[in-house]
Amino acid sequence: MSNIRHALNVKREDDFAKWYQEVIQAADLAEESGVRGCMVIKPWGYGIWERIQRLMDDRIKAAGIQNAYFPLFIPLANFEREAEHVDGFAKEMAVVTHHRLIADGQGKLVPDPEAKLEEPLVVRPTSETIIGDAMARWVQSWRDLPLKLNQWANVVRWEMRTRMFLRTSEFLWQEGHTAHATREEALEETHRALEMYRACVEEDLAMPVIAGEKPENERFPGADETWSIEAMMQDGKALQAGTSHYLGTSFAQAAGIQYQDSEGTQQLCHTTSWGTSTRMVGGVIMTHGDDDGMRVPPRIAPYQIVILPMLRDKPEDEAVVAYCKELRAELASQSTMDEPLRVLFDTTPGKATAKRWDWVRKGAPVIVEVGPRDMENGKVAMLRRDQLWNAENGKPNIHFVARDEFASGAAQLLEDIQNALFNEARARRDENITRGLTDWSQVVEFYKAGGKYPGWVEVQWSKPSGDALEQVIEQLKAEKLTFRNVPKGADPAEGSCIFTGEPAKERILVARAY
Amino acid sequence: MSNIRHALNVKREDDFAKWYQEVIQAADLAEESGVRGCMVIKPWGYGIWERIQRLMDDRIKAAGIQNAYFPLFIPLANFEREAEHVDGFAKEMAVVTHHRLIADGQGKLVPDPEAKLEEPLVVRPTSETIIGDAMARWVQSWRDLPLKLNQWANVVRWEMRTRMFLRTSEFLWQEGHTAHATREEALEETHRALEMYRACVEEDLAMPVIAGEKPENERFPGADETWSIEAMMQDGKALQAGTSHYLGTSFAQAAGIQYQDSEGTQQLCHTTSWGTSTRMVGGVIMTHGDDDGMRVPPRIAPYQIVILPMLRDKPEDEAVVAYCKELRAELASQSTMDEPLRVLFDTTPGKATAKRWDWVRKGAPVIVEVGPRDMENGKVAMLRRDQLWNAENGKPNIHFVARDEFASGAAQLLEDIQNALFNEARARRDENITRGLTDWSQVVEFYKAGGKYPGWVEVQWSKPSGDALEQVIEQLKAEKLTFRNVPKGADPAEGSCIFTGEPAKERILVARAY
Repeated sequence: MSNIRHALNVKREDDFAKWYQEVIQAADLAEESGVRGCMVIKPWGYGIWERIQRLMDDRIKAAGIQNAYFPLFIPLANFEREAEHVDGFAKEMAVVTHHRLIADGQGKLVPDPEAKLEEPLVVRPTSETIIGDAMARWVQSWRDLPLKLNQWANVVRWEMRTRMFLRTSEFLWQEGHTAHATREEALEETHRALEMYRACVEEDLAMPVIAGEKPENERFPGADETWSIEAMMQDGKALQAGTSHYLGTSFAQAAGIQYQDSEGTQQLCHTTSWGTSTRMVGGVIMTHGDDDGMRVPPRIAPYQIVILPMLRDKPEDEAVVAYCKELRAELASQSTMDEPLRVLFDTTPGKATAKRWDWVRKGAPVIVEVGPRDMENGKVAMLRRDQLWNAENGKPNIHFVARDEFASGAAQLLEDIQNALFNEARARRDENITRGLTDWSQVVEFYKAGGKYPGWVEVQWSKPSGDALEQVIEQLKAEKLTFRNVPKGADPAEGSCIFTGEPAKERILVARAY
Repeated sequence: MSNIRHALNVKREDDFAKWYQEVIQAADLAEESGVRGCMVIKPWGYGIWERIQRLMDDRIKAAGIQNAYFPLFIPLANFEREAEHVDGFAKEMAVVTHHRLIADGQGKLVPDPEAKLEEPLVVRPTSETIIGDAMARWVQSWRDLPLKLNQWANVVRWEMRTRMFLRTSEFLWQEGHTAHATREEALEETHRALEMYRACVEEDLAMPVIAGEKPENERFPGADETWSIEAMMQDGKALQAGTSHYLGTSFAQAAGIQYQDSEGTQQLCHTTSWGTSTRMVGGVIMTHGDDDGMRVPPRIAPYQIVILPMLRDKPEDEAVVAYCKELRAELASQSTMDEPLRVLFDTTPGKATAKRWDWVRKGAPVIVEVGPRDMENGKVAMLRRDQLWNAENGKPNIHFVARDEFASGAAQLLEDIQNALFNEARARRDENITRGLTDWSQVVEFYKAGGKYPGWVEVQWSKPSGDALEQVIEQLKAEKLTFRNVPKGADPAEGSCIFTGEPAKERILVARAY
């Protein structure tokens, strides 16, 4: 296939990081804003996020969780009252210290010294503490439980090294927060949220994930248990795409979330929290993107089918436009995967070929071109983004299909593309998880020999804690490796721990990670 | 009707401001957060905002406007480069000066002096300047125009005196920003957005508004024209519910938004901006609320019908629950006003009567109660929130309706309630606009004699500018009055200006306002 001239300058196999930057630019997803660590999410990128948001929100609502909105600013006192939480989060945050600007008399604006806040405010890095305060007010009796809340919001964590979608100072996310009467119910909710994430990310984003528990060192500060979904990117690295925490009673203790049980006794609530963010868009890029740009799974594509008219500033243009409009209307009246088809008739100025390649780079699942001759023959020229090239001749795989046949098959075609993208990613992921290494030196050797993009290994370990775990982490760090999670439903452990030599307790995934 | 025992403690006619606070609390819409000037929007209040957001967003998308997302933080330089903009906005804003907290060694956290930002950042009070920067990058040629963007975001304007939904330091809004090749196109867009707001607020929020142009002194700083929609609250005050600005070329000049026209000449773009916010929720409360709480118009009600089972911890409960579930499913499979019905089967613990009054205060449009006897008779007990009381006996207007009749008429019932709320508010608004006052002293007299809630007056004026206008504004201020707008499509002026005595140029609305 070396005769194919790809649409991007950088190939994945040559420089994955550089390729990632090029896709974001070429697919018009986002750009640097000029404000340190903050990005502008451009319409196509934001449209993908809106689709993810809508589908996730439907799942959240279906689970009986209520959306609400809490303040952007959090008083310092909220962070001070829980030392463990402070250690985890209080380091790099945006701090508001003044509420007014004044002119300095030299054409510049400065914070007004007269308007210094008595107590600085922090721009929320997460809302556990402020939502905890509200829960403490709202929960009085067992009748008020469970209390299940979710917030869609922007959060800020000052980052020194940023990468678009993956790590930015400001990002968009949803954070679920629930309070329950018992440990069992809270754990059930922790797993329900995790399963919701798995289903949304696999079914909607077509991104295969492994759900499992994070080891102790990777827990959310203050949590009793942290669970995650982990996806494999095309460079073999892991991306944590969502987390769900069982917080025990420690956050309830700190915020005073208590209820009177049916016998009249005051009890602490058991709480959970769980979140996903715009980071998922980065995951979609690195899962489905190729050397021609982005490939957006149909369920999250702002437009699933783009119709491009081939116009020549001639009288017959009018008929082509009418033909396209009618096709658009017919397609848009159909449904696929439980939603109406999203179809764009793109009439912006420009040559059809240039526009075709714009949409290839953006990753619209299906591109349809219609010229006067196609119209006369009752056909359309159709390009499936996930099968872009004809390997035999190195040319784009354009299918001339009868218009009616295309229209009647479009809903199924989109479903097929959704499934094809998922299956492709899952097969790649499964191929790149190595099992059966029984010794640490084998792991080191594996990553040394594994080429550029070696994938993950699943090893058995004795689940050490405290200092013993710290030692293992150092061992991993030296090889730039991390623990991902202990997969749910993995085979039981057998044999000995590759780190300690003690009897193994469980299987855990090891990988390089974003 | 004095024998009616209303659900709230404060009546509108006794103390409107206090009543407003009580509705917000009793209907569970929002509460103070403990963070200065910021509120918590509780699930029922946020659900209403989500509905408004969804309906407005559908209209925005249908108009071909693209959503995108821009940074929360804005560098000072953006405010400095346009003096006029600084004067208008740069005063009360949240200023971020540090990016790290450290422990002060005494159990407290303080901004780390080592982590002081070189240039402070402002939390966006509006995004004209940062979106302007992006437009300058994105627009090169006439082919890139028009560029039509919208952002849903939180913004912060430090407020000294706050009132929930109406004036809070942080609030949620949408801001549309568009760039065009010509003045005509930009003006057309300004009016399209205004009309979109009118339609959404009147049709979806059932809140009648008057669309018109703001006088010079009320223009957005730097705008050539500012248009608004104005609604009358039940205390006769005006609430500005949305604005649309034609910004001329001044923002394009400041941000460098230029395009090459088809002849190759560089031209400045003409830009617009327009916004609506969570303030609209305050407007809905003060338009439709009554002495029993909130009344939510069906189109924006998170739940339109609430089904309450009357359970007695007896074996027959099961059959009642099944009866309710079936009813819920049948209702939810129907559509009203182009959307599926939103129906809640409320099984939370508590007595049915107490729960009924909770939903009355929250303002669910229709409440349905089902007890064992209703079930046996194939009936439901139905309460229409907009016709709560039987004036003759002072009791709630509960209708025992055959279940099938109710189910088949529910879609129409909700549409009727939507229209009834709008018509009631419009009739009240129209009754309370006084015309024909020909002298300023008559206006003064009108507001002196007009009782507690005097409404608006429409007067004729000569549209003075500069100092002459300033003088008129002072005159109004002394009576706590403001100009609202010059209604679109008002009768032409005739006679003389009530302020200057000069020939009148147009009719303008005068009112007390939020």
